[in-house]
Amino acid sequence: MANKEIPYKIYLEESEMPKAWYNLRADMKNKPAPLLNPATGKLMSAEELSDVFCAELAKQEVDEDTAYFPIPEEILSFYKMYRPAPLVRAYCLEEKLKTPAKIYYKFEGNNTSGSHKLNSAIAQAYYAKKQGLTGVTTETGAGQWGTALSMACAYLGLDCKVYMVKVSYEQKPFRREVMRTYGASVTPSPSMETEVGRRILEKHPGTGGSLGCAISEAVEVATNTPGYRYVLGSVLNQVMLHQSIIGLEAKAAMDKYGIKPDVIIGCAGGGSNLGGLIAPFMGEKLRGEADYRFIAVEPASCPSLTRGAFAYDYCDTGMVCPLAKMYTLGSNYIPAPNHAGGLRYHGMSPILSQLRADGLLEAISVPQTEVFAAAEYFARAEGTLPAPESSHAIKAAMDEAIRCRETGEEKTILFGLTGTGYFDMYAYEKFHDGKMTDYIPSDEEIQKALSYLPDMSKYDL
Amino acid sequence: MANKEIPYKIYLEESEMPKAWYNLRADMKNKPAPLLNPATGKLMSAEELSDVFCAELAKQEVDEDTAYFPIPEEILSFYKMYRPAPLVRAYCLEEKLKTPAKIYYKFEGNNTSGSHKLNSAIAQAYYAKKQGLTGVTTETGAGQWGTALSMACAYLGLDCKVYMVKVSYEQKPFRREVMRTYGASVTPSPSMETEVGRRILEKHPGTGGSLGCAISEAVEVATNTPGYRYVLGSVLNQVMLHQSIIGLEAKAAMDKYGIKPDVIIGCAGGGSNLGGLIAPFMGEKLRGEADYRFIAVEPASCPSLTRGAFAYDYCDTGMVCPLAKMYTLGSNYIPAPNHAGGLRYHGMSPILSQLRADGLLEAISVPQTEVFAAAEYFARAEGTLPAPESSHAIKAAMDEAIRCRETGEEKTILFGLTGTGYFDMYAYEKFHDGKMTDYIPSDEEIQKALSYLPDMSKYDL
Repeated sequence: MANKEIPYKIYLEESEMPKAWYNLRADMKNKPAPLLNPATGKLMSAEELSDVFCAELAKQEVDEDTAYFPIPEEILSFYKMYRPAPLVRAYCLEEKLKTPAKIYYKFEGNNTSGSHKLNSAIAQAYYAKKQGLTGVTTETGAGQWGTALSMACAYLGLDCKVYMVKVSYEQKPFRREVMRTYGASVTPSPSMETEVGRRILEKHPGTGGSLGCAISEAVEVATNTPGYRYVLGSVLNQVMLHQSIIGLEAKAAMDKYGIKPDVIIGCAGGGSNLGGLIAPFMGEKLRGEADYRFIAVEPASCPSLTRGAFAYDYCDTGMVCPLAKMYTLGSNYIPAPNHAGGLRYHGMSPILSQLRADGLLEAISVPQTEVFAAAEYFARAEGTLPAPESSHAIKAAMDEAIRCRETGEEKTILFGLTGTGYFDMYAYEKFHDGKMTDYIPSDEEIQKALSYLPDMSKYDL
Repeated sequence: MANKEIPYKIYLEESEMPKAWYNLRADMKNKPAPLLNPATGKLMSAEELSDVFCAELAKQEVDEDTAYFPIPEEILSFYKMYRPAPLVRAYCLEEKLKTPAKIYYKFEGNNTSGSHKLNSAIAQAYYAKKQGLTGVTTETGAGQWGTALSMACAYLGLDCKVYMVKVSYEQKPFRREVMRTYGASVTPSPSMETEVGRRILEKHPGTGGSLGCAISEAVEVATNTPGYRYVLGSVLNQVMLHQSIIGLEAKAAMDKYGIKPDVIIGCAGGGSNLGGLIAPFMGEKLRGEADYRFIAVEPASCPSLTRGAFAYDYCDTGMVCPLAKMYTLGSNYIPAPNHAGGLRYHGMSPILSQLRADGLLEAISVPQTEVFAAAEYFARAEGTLPAPESSHAIKAAMDEAIRCRETGEEKTILFGLTGTGYFDMYAYEKFHDGKMTDYIPSDEEIQKALSYLPDMSKYDL
């Protein structure tokens, strides 16, 4: 089909929507390393994991062999409310850049959570409901994941208890109110409701809280409340599985019009979006059916894939969660204030980390002022105001398109536009006012953070 | 086609998108009364209007005969970036309400302006650009219209100067920053930049401004700056024309699946959304080809259609714009603080006013606490967090569906979901905290406001 017949937006028909999630691990020769129990250093079984996660999700977490998991009918119904997400041909951006490259983006922001997070939130809430649980707990920083989970729980009639970092709760009240609209209970963390919260407040009475503390509170409440479990929005294998819907839809839309991307680009924090977007394409590559370049884009202020170590580390600052082998800056690493809140994570999905270690995934990092400049350029060309997280991918895609202008190559670029920036206007304001700065950690700083990695030799394995 | 084959969301193909706007006036037996010059009381010609509006728009403003205006290719291209807007079958809302009614909504919120305003913003900016103008001015309250215009101007490379009511500029900085992202210059009004602004500041040094004052500043700058014109986001006939794209798309989507609505519901402030949504359906009714019920829903705090007078009045508080015959509460009427900022207008589109006077359009008013309760109910069922303005239509549609549950009627309801409420979280917070109140003006208050209507007998006509 000729190029100019490609519409601005490709929407799959409802009947063309994927009916199963794709588990990339099934096609990986080198499987991601398993989660370990931090107390014993031993491999965590699905049974052990099901104390924290509900049983079906614990099974998904450890399953390396099943390639496709059918999506339950109830989740498909929920997906139909906000999916299929469009695959957009960025005609206006191409014209503005004067590039011969063809740019496509998979846009996941057309839902109230404002991002792709909803894809896994509904799955996790569904399995909790199906198991007869009555509620779930989670933590949230800026509030994207908490919002997504609130929406899913409202739909299923499940209690949703969100621990929100206190400084965000107070200074960014908007996503908090969105969560309340969906009936979630939102507690500023640290709180007096938990033992860990009370302990922290006693020690640091005026603290604004941290993600690490909020995780600890959410886990404590989940394990102490009958009928409750804890859920997490990124990093985990189960999340990558649910997010494969992004890539499956993108690939179906491209196949429909005979489009084959040369390079696929996504922003990377914990890896939930990137892992989902690349899954079916990477599967083809692993099976030797096709070849693509894959590029992860991370903030220069939190460069786990580009400057971290590939090692076992704690997933949380509180060191209560399982150990995961991943690219990490150390669970003590405190990323500098960076407005892409969703990318401020010290580690990276074990699946993506393994692909990176095997040379299948490239990684670059970009400073945030350049990211916001790209975001603004994109908004003026394509209309949509992007999230700071997504704008990391925009920046890399634009750079690739500019290189094509110089070389004359007509590459086809696909990137993930994970969400909208409507709740990030403070950051845009800083950028407009010239008050945004870049922070790039020194080698010493990173070495120091990495010196806190757990000593694996202490375990008698 | 059987009902259950109807997807959750109907997206037209790009090739099925309307290629012309529909001018409802061509099918009206009683035409809306013409605009009058406030100085002379005489009919304003297109030539006179083109001192304020660009020439092509002035022509559209006065044309009562042409039924279809082809949409220029450049505007069609822009529409393709964010349109077609989906027609959504509210399966989940129906189930939650246990109603036999079939509920559809046309969703106009999937773009960064957050509402339907973009449909006319791009048209007005396009004709300004085509005429060789270099910039446009406008006023904005909460910022929806200003945002839409900024996006359109960024796309076309046109200067955009927005006068934003100072209290909104300071207390609601988010839409201001969205506008700045699109390169608009945003000035808090009253400002020292204009004569009228300086005069007001001298008299009321600490004032937070008003929409009336912002209009006056925008008009002053437009008429004093070579190559500039003033643009307006509602009320005008030209705006109803551009917004007909809403109804044309909705009707095409319904026709495709053999759906015929029994009742069509929209919120009404200045009338831009309602006028656009009902246009092609009302056309069929006027031509005797089909019958529908049409319901306008307005806030109880600003009830122009339900409690106002049908008379000539000023369109603006500053009394500089033409006189229009419309349902009005008087240009001096100051609506009580109501969070649906887009519905706080003292008058109503002359086209809709005439339809109302002719008994073709029903009108009801609803108090805002009930509107927010409906908004929250809708969000939990359908996912999308609605704008307070749109939620007036949700409230009326839900009431209609509940009546169907009682009578067993399987009515088909279509309503307009004009936008999202992401920038309205302060209002939602008030609602959640039980601090939202209702205000219903007394008869005396309305009579007093109406006593300021212009005395038309002073004109020697």
